[in-house]
Amino acid sequence: MFHHNKRLQYTVRVSESNPGLANLLLEQFGGPQGELAAAMRYFTQALGEVDPGRKDMLLDIATEELSHLEVIGTLVAMLNKGAKGKLAEGVDEAAEAYRTLQGAGNDSHVTQVLYGGGPALTNSGGQLWTAGYVDSIGDPTADLRSNIAAEARAKIVYERLINVTTDPGVADALAFLMTREVAHQRSFERALYSMDDNFPVGKLAPVPEYADLYINTSQGEGDMRGSWNQGEPWTYVDDREKQSNVDGGGGSATVELKSDEVKAVEALSSRLASDPQAMPLTGIDLGVGKPKTAGGK
Amino acid sequence: MFHHNKRLQYTVRVSESNPGLANLLLEQFGGPQGELAAAMRYFTQALGEVDPGRKDMLLDIATEELSHLEVIGTLVAMLNKGAKGKLAEGVDEAAEAYRTLQGAGNDSHVTQVLYGGGPALTNSGGQLWTAGYVDSIGDPTADLRSNIAAEARAKIVYERLINVTTDPGVADALAFLMTREVAHQRSFERALYSMDDNFPVGKLAPVPEYADLYINTSQGEGDMRGSWNQGEPWTYVDDREKQSNVDGGGGSATVELKSDEVKAVEALSSRLASDPQAMPLTGIDLGVGKPKTAGGK
Amino acid sequence: MFHHNKRLQYTVRVSESNPGLANLLLEQFGGPQGELAAAMRYFTQALGEVDPGRKDMLLDIATEELSHLEVIGTLVAMLNKGAKGKLAEGVDEAAEAYRTLQGAGNDSHVTQVLYGGGPALTNSGGQLWTAGYVDSIGDPTADLRSNIAAEARAKIVYERLINVTTDPGVADALAFLMTREVAHQRSFERALYSMDDNFPVGKLAPVPEYADLYINTSQGEGDMRGSWNQGEPWTYVDDREKQSNVDGGGGSATVELKSDEVKAVEALSSRLASDPQAMPLTGIDLGVGKPKTAGGK
Amino acid sequence: MFHHNKRLQYTVRVSESNPGLANLLLEQFGGPQGELAAAMRYFTQALGEVDPGRKDMLLDIATEELSHLEVIGTLVAMLNKGAKGKLAEGVDEAAEAYRTLQGAGNDSHVTQVLYGGGPALTNSGGQLWTAGYVDSIGDPTADLRSNIAAEARAKIVYERLINVTTDPGVADALAFLMTREVAHQRSFERALYSMDDNFPVGKLAPVPEYADLYINTSQGEGDMRGSWNQGEPWTYVDDREKQSNVDGGGGSATVELKSDEVKAVEALSSRLASDPQAMPLTGIDLGVGKPKTAGGK
Amino acid sequence: MFHHNKRLQYTVRVSESNPGLANLLLEQFGGPQGELAAAMRYFTQALGEVDPGRKDMLLDIATEELSHLEVIGTLVAMLNKGAKGKLAEGVDEAAEAYRTLQGAGNDSHVTQVLYGGGPALTNSGGQLWTAGYVDSIGDPTADLRSNIAAEARAKIVYERLINVTTDPGVADALAFLMTREVAHQRSFERALYSMDDNFPVGKLAPVPEYADLYINTSQGEGDMRGSWNQGEPWTYVDDREKQSNVDGGGGSATVELKSDEVKAVEALSSRLASDPQAMPLTGIDLGVGKPKTAGGK
Amino acid sequence: MFHHNKRLQYTVRVSESNPGLANLLLEQFGGPQGELAAAMRYFTQALGEVDPGRKDMLLDIATEELSHLEVIGTLVAMLNKGAKGKLAEGVDEAAEAYRTLQGAGNDSHVTQVLYGGGPALTNSGGQLWTAGYVDSIGDPTADLRSNIAAEARAKIVYERLINVTTDPGVADALAFLMTREVAHQRSFERALYSMDDNFPVGKLAPVPEYADLYINTSQGEGDMRGSWNQGEPWTYVDDREKQSNVDGGGGSATVELKSDEVKAVEALSSRLASDPQAMPLTGIDLGVGKPKTAGGK
Repeated sequence: MFHHNKRLQYTVRVSESNPGLANLLLEQFGGPQGELAAAMRYFTQALGEVDPGRKDMLLDIATEELSHLEVIGTLVAMLNKGAKGKLAEGVDEAAEAYRTLQGAGNDSHVTQVLYGGGPALTNSGGQLWTAGYVDSIGDPTADLRSNIAAEARAKIVYERLINVTTDPGVADALAFLMTREVAHQRSFERALYSMDDNFPVGKLAPVPEYADLYINTSQGEGDMRGSWNQGEPWTYVDDREKQSNVDGGGGSATVELKSDEVKAVEALSSRLASDPQAMPLTGIDLGVGKPKTAGGK
Repeated sequence: MFHHNKRLQYTVRVSESNPGLANLLLEQFGGPQGELAAAMRYFTQALGEVDPGRKDMLLDIATEELSHLEVIGTLVAMLNKGAKGKLAEGVDEAAEAYRTLQGAGNDSHVTQVLYGGGPALTNSGGQLWTAGYVDSIGDPTADLRSNIAAEARAKIVYERLINVTTDPGVADALAFLMTREVAHQRSFERALYSMDDNFPVGKLAPVPEYADLYINTSQGEGDMRGSWNQGEPWTYVDDREKQSNVDGGGGSATVELKSDEVKAVEALSSRLASDPQAMPLTGIDLGVGKPKTAGGK
Repeated sequence: MFHHNKRLQYTVRVSESNPGLANLLLEQFGGPQGELAAAMRYFTQALGEVDPGRKDMLLDIATEELSHLEVIGTLVAMLNKGAKGKLAEGVDEAAEAYRTLQGAGNDSHVTQVLYGGGPALTNSGGQLWTAGYVDSIGDPTADLRSNIAAEARAKIVYERLINVTTDPGVADALAFLMTREVAHQRSFERALYSMDDNFPVGKLAPVPEYADLYINTSQGEGDMRGSWNQGEPWTYVDDREKQSNVDGGGGSATVELKSDEVKAVEALSSRLASDPQAMPLTGIDLGVGKPKTAGGK
Repeated sequence: MFHHNKRLQYTVRVSESNPGLANLLLEQFGGPQGELAAAMRYFTQALGEVDPGRKDMLLDIATEELSHLEVIGTLVAMLNKGAKGKLAEGVDEAAEAYRTLQGAGNDSHVTQVLYGGGPALTNSGGQLWTAGYVDSIGDPTADLRSNIAAEARAKIVYERLINVTTDPGVADALAFLMTREVAHQRSFERALYSMDDNFPVGKLAPVPEYADLYINTSQGEGDMRGSWNQGEPWTYVDDREKQSNVDGGGGSATVELKSDEVKAVEALSSRLASDPQAMPLTGIDLGVGKPKTAGGK
Repeated sequence: MFHHNKRLQYTVRVSESNPGLANLLLEQFGGPQGELAAAMRYFTQALGEVDPGRKDMLLDIATEELSHLEVIGTLVAMLNKGAKGKLAEGVDEAAEAYRTLQGAGNDSHVTQVLYGGGPALTNSGGQLWTAGYVDSIGDPTADLRSNIAAEARAKIVYERLINVTTDPGVADALAFLMTREVAHQRSFERALYSMDDNFPVGKLAPVPEYADLYINTSQGEGDMRGSWNQGEPWTYVDDREKQSNVDGGGGSATVELKSDEVKAVEALSSRLASDPQAMPLTGIDLGVGKPKTAGGK
Repeated sequence: MFHHNKRLQYTVRVSESNPGLANLLLEQFGGPQGELAAAMRYFTQALGEVDPGRKDMLLDIATEELSHLEVIGTLVAMLNKGAKGKLAEGVDEAAEAYRTLQGAGNDSHVTQVLYGGGPALTNSGGQLWTAGYVDSIGDPTADLRSNIAAEARAKIVYERLINVTTDPGVADALAFLMTREVAHQRSFERALYSMDDNFPVGKLAPVPEYADLYINTSQGEGDMRGSWNQGEPWTYVDDREKQSNVDGGGGSATVELKSDEVKAVEALSSRLASDPQAMPLTGIDLGVGKPKTAGGK
């Protein structure tokens, strides 16, 4: 079970009200690369995990991410605290209050008016957090790779936030959170390679004749070669004719239908058949109007 | 620009109508690990990419994923073709039609009634595809890791589908698609390591004092050690007291408010203060009713 | 910050594999009335709360809800454990595996194929959890009422689940979780009435002339009177004529536009004017086909 | 303003409990082609409309769609009434209650357990209604076409539901609702062609050199000609070389950057450059394990 | 299968960095009327289509829309390229970087911070693309109308974007894309009327007694007549009494329940009965506080 | 059924164009606390309700909320009317049009470009309305509490909007709408307490040994006592050891598996076992690059 200690994992010191910055920080509270997504990714994996080492690690890191969620949410709450008080108490005249709200910039109006200055589980654009961000699928060779990638993405978003933050206390806390993502990435890498068989993932082998093809589907000036498509083990398929119908079966689609199905499909086809010989009058012929303004202005 | 060749990349041969299986295959059409998510992940990365090698590779693979989307969607269409014809033409009595619809199992009723047997951009449970599945963030050291993970996840889902598929033509096509995920994973791995500096991701260095801590937040029977939390470079933080307030600043949260903000916050606090001495009558005291059935039935 | 103790808050004892029941339990894992929604509702309120008593209470209960999330997720994991192993290892022939998957009923195919038997942040129908379920708005007189309601809803959903559960260990754990919702409701009621001014919520007074109207907008057989629309303080507005335009201003809509705006609006109106005298030929006149099957079959 | 008359627009007569059918009917309650989507489509258009004839018509039809929402929702409520009573009162033993719930088929378990048998704003698969279904954009030449299409889609979904409905009272009500969609389609067609200039939509003219091209992007066996790509006014572009770079500008992408931008982009490119000469060791080389099961089983 | 040619369909020339404009253009990349929605609408229809002419046309246009997605995405990437480089490299001081980010206006902060300047599958407000935008239902008489409407909507949104674009290269590309929507609308119109029976859609006939009613549900000043509600074939139902209960069955709702269901429903009703005679003390009576600020300020 | 009267419930008088304010008002049109959510909450409850008094009240209030939706939507339409005309007619030069669009502030660019100035079913940040906002579950003791809370939330959001509104006609209309929420809250309270048994909700009794525990999960400076956790009936559980494993069963999780399940789970565990003794080379060891910029800038 979870316990909570009222001390934050990292001290939050904010030097002045800044609802605009608060709103940007929501990326890491309720955004796709944020701490709730991280905590839920690892927590859901932990619950289904049977390997004792991985289960322990996933619970450790999930719990730490919840503590990060608390740090980032507290930063948001502190940055909004003053503005929240003023709007709730209606201390400003409406015109001034409107100017202040708009002046904070970005989408902080949503945070203020709808969420009352509290941290909301949205990204900085107001998009509601969705479990579609959590990509756990219950296989550790895949999930650990997902975790490695997620930590890398979170690190980058923290870096971007730091690049636009002047408040030193906020920047410090963000640097701490950014750093921890790097540490977690390392743990997940170690755990991945502590399985002695993690590629290809899963239990079924690839089909040998298709496993080493690199199919050059995008052609023209800019075609490049590198280790991702040349050298071992690649066969480079450049010929457009050989890119489709790779199995030699014709590249068409068929299904064997029962006789009543055939009959129904034929009836449907016939009822809705298109006549390629027709040159029908159409709705737009009835609606063509006056000449328009010259194209593209 | 894109071109289309009417031959499929892989021949689709379905041996009988099976709307239930069709519905399961939607996982890889409009599900989170499916081909649209893959194609869009790589395509959006390609558009913003400036490195010529990666850009070329991303376009090659994005285009192939669109071709896979076509294969999986065509499988769905073939598996549903007969049922679609029969429902559209109303060939069965209602009672028989209802039995057939329900008898196909899982969520194939949604596919039939709402989408008319055409492949829909949903997963097998009817959840609409959302761009929240696409985790591109515009930094290749992160995005390539996301791609590696995505290919691993997709491989696993294909494997699960193969495990429940008896139709040999469908199983063959799924095995082809599964195989290509493995090949793509390899390309992305090669591209990642063709950058000579991909860890830590980004440009800012981690804060040294927090970079090598492993914080044992989850404790009790089941605590484990392994390379993810012991050996180089880890400092293992086991003491609960040292897990919070890691910066030594006290672990509290503060913000410096202007005087009018202070005044507003105080007014708000006072207006909505909770009285810890009160033992109030509450709504539930007014609504307590008759004894209930014994707990937990 | 959060800590985790490897012992669950309540012991989980499952007597046999049951992916169908596992899927139903997802309602309280990733559904709208489930434990994640509860935990996040109280946690986001706590972060923005300044009253010390409420803040403490919200953190206590949020943390307990996370522990409940762990219990319900663990129930799901145990109920799915056997099926997960068999599908991952491919121990059954495909036909048998397909039958088992479909035979488990409801949407457990999503859980198995997409999420690999791990608990997923969806409801029992596969709908992804969304932060739209979290209704915190940063005012305690409203938020505490939201919490009271949320606990009542969660209690009912647990009751429905208990009513369909035969596994005694699962039923016990559900009864524990159900019970805690009742306790939490009581805490929130007490906290609400520990504020000596919680109705009307907010700081602005209602407009007196509209505050005590009950507007009987739905009329006909079935009209009823009760304390919600009769007695003090209600004025019952039954006359349709007096229901609209309650302010006596005419019930129309106007805006004062600047002259260039007027001109633009007139140009737009004129360009897209509808001719009420016309009896136009339309697209459907071009497309009317053969007689149809008799109406409504 | 709206008023409500307790008599339904169409009498609802249900001959027996049927939660499975109730669940299917949700398509037209909270599904994409359902009555809420219809009502909201026309209502939002009406509010912004300045043409008096269209505004009146949109309000008439929006209001009728709300009345249809009531009819379909009432059908759902009646079909679920018995099951709701039994589950709420817990009259069956758990094993029997579970069998009944699963036996109703499709996603009726969601309706019962989560929504308590009341009609929910979801489709038959449990997907929450989203305003993404409402495609109003505030231009009547487009919006009326959207309405025409929406009515056509709704008609088809009602037809599919009728095809699987044996209960005569339900089938009657569905036939009424289906019929009204046809009437509404006619009204929208008439309104569209009562504007004497509705094609091309909008005020800007198409660019003449691109307006009449039909670009044969999909080639191979199955290429077809018909009025949609031959005859007046089409120029059929078959030559792949002429399909891209249609403006003759080269088909590349350029932007003029300022010097500090150039410098930053170069630094970024250089920092993250991919080395096409490298043949790097990658993560998968570290993780290659034992041989797998034969491909595709 | 799909192939890709590195030349764009239309040359992209951007004359200066402009993240604010980039963000607006996202409407047509990941917005509801954008190119992904268009491509997926036609592609999903194509897969299920059996008529050879329509199938070919749908694939042609779907493929072209993917090429448009590439053009609009490339415009976004070029407009963001400079800002992306500067933020990624951290070349500006934080205060300057913050000013630049906010100064770009609208929601470009989301694009920069979260998506790193790459084109994202969102609209200009950051709303994630959802398959709820794709309205294909597998019947060509409905789907072609949906396509016609979709092209009309897209044309209008392009027109609005052109109206706010000063960059001549961007405006040119937008005019090209706008033009192609008009061409596609024409193709879909031709295809619709190449079926000789497209109204009423579907196979079941409307119920004659309800097919020609126009129900004047919205009454008062502003009531209008026009071809949509007068002339052939309309019967105009103005009498409120005749608008409901149109079948004469009474306008009520009934279901025939089995005896155990009746008993359960009665038990439920009785347990939760409302007492219309009561004048209960309520929660708000316990919480009425001090007088408020004067109404409406 | 519903009828519509062309007079609004409250007269709308707007004194000048203001797309920025229009956009803020969307919170109460298509936002979570807005009028559509309210109307749908009560309407869906009404359809499933069997108690005549509550059913009548729910229909009365649902219908009034639809009328409020009309008022707020009309306010939005009036505030946008001028800007809509100018953008649609393209009366301004592009540079001026762009400045005007951006200058209106907040997310009004979405409203203008995508929705053409019509009211959209989004909140002020462009988030699409979702039925996830509707929390009806079909039990009146829970649903009435949800309604009470929803009215309280809506009142607060109106208050915040009034605090930033200078236009007197808009402020008046908002004050009317705000007032009605208070009246509705009163009706719902009365209806709740007109049931003589509304706590605990539902039919099953809480488990006595867990019903009166208050579990102090969050500890440290800031721990508080009040009526919500002291006095009758609380037992305050402060000892961390007693907070978990409250049933004394050990706090672990078990499931009894069949022998083939055991075998499969063992095979899975063994295949994916983590080696805690390994100190593996990992992907990041291959990718460590040059030193980074100093941490946290």
